[in-house]
Amino acid sequence: MVKVSLIQSQPILGEAEQNIQNLIPLLAQTEDSALIVLPELANSGYNFTSRNQAMKLSESIEDSRFIEFLHQHARASGCHIVAGMNERERDLLYNTAVLVGPDGIIGRYRKLHLFMNEKDIFEPGNRGLPVFDVGQMTVGIQICFDYLFPETWRILGLKGADLICHPSNLVTPYGQKVVPMHSVVNGVYVITANRTGADGDLKFSGGSIITGTRGEVLARASENKPEVITIEIDPQKSRNKMITEKNHALNDRRPDQYLDILES
Amino acid sequence: MVKVSLIQSQPILGEAEQNIQNLIPLLAQTEDSALIVLPELANSGYNFTSRNQAMKLSESIEDSRFIEFLHQHARASGCHIVAGMNERERDLLYNTAVLVGPDGIIGRYRKLHLFMNEKDIFEPGNRGLPVFDVGQMTVGIQICFDYLFPETWRILGLKGADLICHPSNLVTPYGQKVVPMHSVVNGVYVITANRTGADGDLKFSGGSIITGTRGEVLARASENKPEVITIEIDPQKSRNKMITEKNHALNDRRPDQYLDILES
Repeated sequence: MVKVSLIQSQPILGEAEQNIQNLIPLLAQTEDSALIVLPELANSGYNFTSRNQAMKLSESIEDSRFIEFLHQHARASGCHIVAGMNERERDLLYNTAVLVGPDGIIGRYRKLHLFMNEKDIFEPGNRGLPVFDVGQMTVGIQICFDYLFPETWRILGLKGADLICHPSNLVTPYGQKVVPMHSVVNGVYVITANRTGADGDLKFSGGSIITGTRGEVLARASENKPEVITIEIDPQKSRNKMITEKNHALNDRRPDQYLDILES
Repeated sequence: MVKVSLIQSQPILGEAEQNIQNLIPLLAQTEDSALIVLPELANSGYNFTSRNQAMKLSESIEDSRFIEFLHQHARASGCHIVAGMNERERDLLYNTAVLVGPDGIIGRYRKLHLFMNEKDIFEPGNRGLPVFDVGQMTVGIQICFDYLFPETWRILGLKGADLICHPSNLVTPYGQKVVPMHSVVNGVYVITANRTGADGDLKFSGGSIITGTRGEVLARASENKPEVITIEIDPQKSRNKMITEKNHALNDRRPDQYLDILES
């Protein structure tokens, strides 16, 4: 069994240092979790009024106070943290989630499917769908609106993810409804760490969830306040893809027929 | 708007003629529906005790009393019918769903993902994922356990299906939970026509559903009795894949990145 936590926080637009300070008491509640998942864009807030503003609130991977802060906690507690951040590379911005461990940054995922005005601010992700070994388990990452695209969840399942970390800033109720399907069809755990509160004219829906390998909701946060949820999950369950004695969730796929375009 | 019906019936194993007779009063309740969906293996029943028994209860497409019966109704009422049947081709069996219209059989789909003991009886489907023009709309077909494989639903969505007909003999509660997700991520209607009753040691879960393009359950049948549900659906809704003013459910996909196997 592995202890994992979700942090449902409430980032404030443009208040990078305050956002870090607000995370300190929440991180303190994660006890001895092996893995902690934070929301999307946890360093900067979400609802930028312009690309210029987003640029000012971005950080590069190599020189990020936010990553330094996460690393400090990861080193002190021996855990791994997945957190959304507004990433700058040269003059381009990405809606990124980083994986930070006791030795520093391990990898990152750049959101492939941008939602609404994000298209005017961020570049679409260009680093594919990596999975990462974090010791007791393999994790993949998806960000918020990626929930609408079953392809990416399936690819992470096929690459051996036990757990998909899903930093989010969800405003509609669809995400929390669709995520359990990705769990059950791929036989993986998912942690959807959503945010709460409002940001300009956007109100976020909270209700962060942890789903099990049969799509069951193992834990659900409130809709309107910062919160920490810690549970134990069993990576052996995500590695057993036999859903009946004769059916394997992944090996029963029929890739040859998926390519068939026979029309009658 | 197009009127569509689901028939939740209760086929009896081995009673081909009785199964037809039992459908007559149910078909009479479909009013002037343009399309009617029946359960999986509606001609033969499901829980065969041996492959030999299944062979005896099968029919070839060219010489099927069941298809003749469906055609008779389709011709008289000007409708289309999708129905599951135990199909024999030479000495091979397929878990098939046929599409029958006023002029006779239009096409068929052979179940790609076989469940449990079906693997000992049927050949896996070998005719890909066809879609069919039935006048006011385009339909695709999935059968029962196919619900666990998002690939096939996505392909039918990409091929332009407005409605996916889903003849089923579901025993677990997962199917009816997962189907709404296929609706929302592909922006299509789904009719899951399940059966009721028991067949040997199997008890079927009924609860047939019709889902809308946002994954909403538009209608749900009881769990334990034969039933007909008729509603109107709007194919224009399934053709509009814009889910926000800047997001298209299908065009926002990132196929280039889905192929990327970058590992960090």
